Amino acid sequence: MSDAVYDEFHAAVREIGMLGSIEQLLEWDSETYMPPGGLAARAEQMSLLSALAHDRKTSPRLGEWLDRLESADGDAVRQTNVREMRRVYERSRRLPTDLVRRITKASVIAKEAWTRARAASDFSAFAPNLCELLDLKRQAADCIGFDDEPYDALLDEYEPGMTTRQAARVFAELRGPLSEFVGRIAAAPRKPDASIVHRHFPRQAQEAFARRVAAAIGFDFKRGRLDVSTHPFCSGAHPGDIRLTTRYSEDFLSPAIFGVLHEAGHGLYEQGQLFRHALTPAGMAVSLGVHESQSRLWENFVGRSRPFWEGLYEAARAAFPDALGGVALDEFYGAINAVSPTAIRVEADEVTYNLHIILRFELEREMMSGRLAVNDVPDAWNAKMKDLLGIVPDNDAQGCLQDIHWALGALGYFPTYALGNLMAAQFFAAAKKSIGDLDERLRRGEFTVLLDWLRENIHVHGQRYRAEELVRRVTGQPLGTTAFLDYVRRKFGPIYGL
Amino acid sequence: MSDAVYDEFHAAVREIGMLGSIEQLLEWDSETYMPPGGLAARAEQMSLLSALAHDRKTSPRLGEWLDRLESADGDAVRQTNVREMRRVYERSRRLPTDLVRRITKASVIAKEAWTRARAASDFSAFAPNLCELLDLKRQAADCIGFDDEPYDALLDEYEPGMTTRQAARVFAELRGPLSEFVGRIAAAPRKPDASIVHRHFPRQAQEAFARRVAAAIGFDFKRGRLDVSTHPFCSGAHPGDIRLTTRYSEDFLSPAIFGVLHEAGHGLYEQGQLFRHALTPAGMAVSLGVHESQSRLWENFVGRSRPFWEGLYEAARAAFPDALGGVALDEFYGAINAVSPTAIRVEADEVTYNLHIILRFELEREMMSGRLAVNDVPDAWNAKMKDLLGIVPDNDAQGCLQDIHWALGALGYFPTYALGNLMAAQFFAAAKKSIGDLDERLRRGEFTVLLDWLRENIHVHGQRYRAEELVRRVTGQPLGTTAFLDYVRRKFGPIYGL
Repeated sequence: MSDAVYDEFHAAVREIGMLGSIEQLLEWDSETYMPPGGLAARAEQMSLLSALAHDRKTSPRLGEWLDRLESADGDAVRQTNVREMRRVYERSRRLPTDLVRRITKASVIAKEAWTRARAASDFSAFAPNLCELLDLKRQAADCIGFDDEPYDALLDEYEPGMTTRQAARVFAELRGPLSEFVGRIAAAPRKPDASIVHRHFPRQAQEAFARRVAAAIGFDFKRGRLDVSTHPFCSGAHPGDIRLTTRYSEDFLSPAIFGVLHEAGHGLYEQGQLFRHALTPAGMAVSLGVHESQSRLWENFVGRSRPFWEGLYEAARAAFPDALGGVALDEFYGAINAVSPTAIRVEADEVTYNLHIILRFELEREMMSGRLAVNDVPDAWNAKMKDLLGIVPDNDAQGCLQDIHWALGALGYFPTYALGNLMAAQFFAAAKKSIGDLDERLRRGEFTVLLDWLRENIHVHGQRYRAEELVRRVTGQPLGTTAFLDYVRRKFGPIYGL
Repeated sequence: MSDAVYDEFHAAVREIGMLGSIEQLLEWDSETYMPPGGLAARAEQMSLLSALAHDRKTSPRLGEWLDRLESADGDAVRQTNVREMRRVYERSRRLPTDLVRRITKASVIAKEAWTRARAASDFSAFAPNLCELLDLKRQAADCIGFDDEPYDALLDEYEPGMTTRQAARVFAELRGPLSEFVGRIAAAPRKPDASIVHRHFPRQAQEAFARRVAAAIGFDFKRGRLDVSTHPFCSGAHPGDIRLTTRYSEDFLSPAIFGVLHEAGHGLYEQGQLFRHALTPAGMAVSLGVHESQSRLWENFVGRSRPFWEGLYEAARAAFPDALGGVALDEFYGAINAVSPTAIRVEADEVTYNLHIILRFELEREMMSGRLAVNDVPDAWNAKMKDLLGIVPDNDAQGCLQDIHWALGALGYFPTYALGNLMAAQFFAAAKKSIGDLDERLRRGEFTVLLDWLRENIHVHGQRYRAEELVRRVTGQPLGTTAFLDYVRRKFGPIYGL
C-alpha cells in the first residue's frame, strides 16, 4: 500500500472527523450555554459544517483513494479506516443531496408538529408529518439499497452491518420470556419500597455525589466535563474532550445518579479511544448499540448492583443524611431496582425497558413495509403495550407520541437501545468470568480492573470489528438473549422473592 | 449591478463570516469551559477553520466577483461589502501561505519563550524570538505593501485606513499635555483614598452587581452571556450571541465592575449590529479602535462618572454593606478615579493609560524601522517610562515583558487602545451635545437614550465608514486630542483640587 496515498487519504479522513468534532461542540453548546438569541446563527453554522463534511465524504478523490487502497495491503488500522470510509462514501453518495435536504426540512416541520400534537395529546395532528417522513425514508432506503426490506437500510445507519432479520430474531427470543417474567414480578409476594428515592435530595449534594461516582469509575475530568441540560447526553468530540450532561430533580435521586453513571459509561468509551487514531474510524465507536452497551453496563450492571452499593452506601448516607439516614442498604438496593410497568420508556426499569423497544421496533418495521397504516398507530401501540406490559397508556401523549425520534426522522434508532442492553449483559458476563473476583473489586471500589478489561477488549479497537463480530470475539458467543435473561432472573428473583 | 452576481458573492462572504463565528465560539470555549485535555484537538480545529476561511478569502472566484461588482452600481450596503472584501482579498492574497504559517509557528514558540522569560524577568531569553517575529513581520509588511513605513501595514490590520503618520500626529499632541497633567496630579494638594475599593467584596455579590449593571446599560442577556476567564474578553460570534467574560477578585472591586462595563461596552457594539447584515462587513465592527471607543465609553465616560454613581450608589452600598456602608458617595467616586502612575498598563487609570500606549507605539515603530535594536528595548522602555510617567519598573517582568502582544506577533495592535480612548471622548462629547440632559439621564439610570444614540450614529453602520470618516461624520471633527484632554482636565481637576 502506498504510504503517500494512505497519508493523503488519512489527512482527508481526519478533516472529516475534525468537522464532526466541531459540530459536536456546537451541539453541546446549544444544549448547555448558548443564549436563546444564538439559535438562528447556530442552525446556519451547523448546516455549513455538515455541508463541508458532506462535500468531503462524497468527493471523487475520496473514491479514488479508496479504490487504490482497497487493492493494496495494510495493517488492521488501515483496513479499518478504508473499510469504514468506503461505507461512509457509498452511503453519502447514494443519498441525493436534494433528498437529504427534504428529509431535514420535513424533520424540522415534523418536530414542531410533534411538539404541538404531544401537548394536545392528538396523534392525528402529527400523522401527516409521520406519513411524509416514512415516504422520504422509504426513498432513502431505496437509494441506499438493502437485502430484504427497506428497514435494513435505516437500521444500518445506526448499527452498521446489523440486519432487520437479526434484530427481529433476538427480539423474538426476548419477547416471551421477558414479558412472562414481568408478569411474575407483578404478582410477586415481596415488593421493594420505591418511594425511598423520591424523598428530598438537595441538588448540590446530588451534583457532588454524581461527580464523585463518575470520577470513581474512571471518568477523567481533565479530559471531560459534566454540565446541565434538559435532555442528558454525552458529547464525544475527541478522546481528550468528552462532555457529559445531566439534570437534577430534588425529589428523585435516580435521574442524576444513574443518569451520570449512564453518560459516564458513554464517556469512558469515548475517552478510551486511542488518541493516535482519534477522528478516524479506527478511533471511533463501533455503533450506537455498542455505545449503549457501555453506558448500560456502568449504569445498571455495575451501578445498580449490590456490590457497588456495599462499597458506596455509607458515602451516600453521609451525602443525603435526611433522606437515607434511616434506610438500610437492602431497602435502598430494592428501591433503585424496583420493577414496575410504566407507559413511559425513559422511566422504565431494567426489566421492562427492552419491551418498550420491541414495541417500537415492531411498529416501525410494519410502518416502513406499509403493513401498518399511520392512522392505525395509536391502536396498534396500545394493543402491543397491553400485550407486552399489561398496561394501556392514558392517552397518546403518554403513548405513541412520547418519543421525539420519529419526528426527527430517526427511524431505525430504537433497536440499538435494546441491542445495547443485550451486549452489556454478554460483555459483563465475560468480564466477570475473566476477572473472577469482580464483585469483590466493585465492593472495594476498585473499578480500574473492569475499565481496563473494557478498554482492552472493546474501546481500543475503535471500529476494527463490527458489533456482531466484536461480541463474538469478546464473549465467544453470537449476539443473543441468554446472558441478559440469566442476569435479569438472577438479580430480580431474590429482590422480588421469586 | 447584477443581483445574481451579488447574491453569489454575498453567500460566499457570509460563509467566511460564519467560519469566523465558529472560530470565535471555539476560542470562547477554550477560555471558559474546555477541559485541559481538549487543547491539542482545539488547536487543530482552529487551524482547519482558518485554513477553510483563508481558501475562501483568496479564491479566484471572489476576485472575479469583486471585479464585476466594483464596476457596477449598488447601495451603501453593497458598496461596503464589496470595498471591505476587496481589502480582505488583497491582504490575504498578498500574504504567502508559507509566511503566515511561519509567523504562526514563530508565535507559538515565542509565547512559550515569553512565558518563561517573564517568569524569570529576563528579557534576553525572549529577545531572539522578538527578533525573529520582527523580521517575519517586516516581510509581511513588504508583501502587503505600505506608503511610508512598514509599520503602516501592521497598523492597518487592526485599524483599517489608519496610517502610522496619523497615529504619530495625535500621539505627539497628547504626549506633552498628558504627561504634564500627570505631574500636576502627582503634586496635587488633595488625594482620594483608593484603598476603599480594596476592601472585602464577596464574589457572589460582585457577580450579581456586575450582571445588574450590564443589563442596566442595555446588554441583552437573551442574546448574550457572562462567564469567567483568566483574561476578560468579549466574543462576538453573531449579534444574537455575544459572550462576555470577567474575573473576580474578592479584595478588589474594580476589575469585575469596570471590567464588565468595559466588555459590555464591546458587547453592546456587537449586539447593535443589524441582524440582516450579520457576518458580512456591513454588519461588523469597523476597527479595534472603534471597538475600544465603545468599551471605554461605557467603562469610563459613563461607568466612572459621578452622575452614574449618583443613581447607582445606594444599590452598591446595599450590595456591599460591609465594605461601603460607611463610605460617602464622593469618597467612592474618588476611589474609583484615583490616578497613580504604575508600571503595569492593565492596572493604569484613565489619565495615565494612554501614556503606556504611546510608549509601546514609539518602541514598536522604532523596532520595525530598525532604529531600535531589540537588545536595547529594556533600556529604551525604562527611559521612556521615566520620561512619560516619572517611574521606572522594578524589573523587565514589570516592564517590557509585561504584555503578551509582541509574543503573539500582534505588532501594531497597541495604538488602537489609545485611539479608542480618543474616539470615546469625541463620541461622548457629541452625544452629550446632542442629548442635552445626558447627565440627568445617567443619574436616573436611563441609559437607553445614550445607547440609542450610539446605535444610530455608530453601531448600525457596520463597516460603512472607516474610523477616521466615522469620527468626522459623528462629531464634525477629525480624530484629535482636544475632547480627551478637555474631559480629563474637567473631570480630574476637581477630584485632585487642581
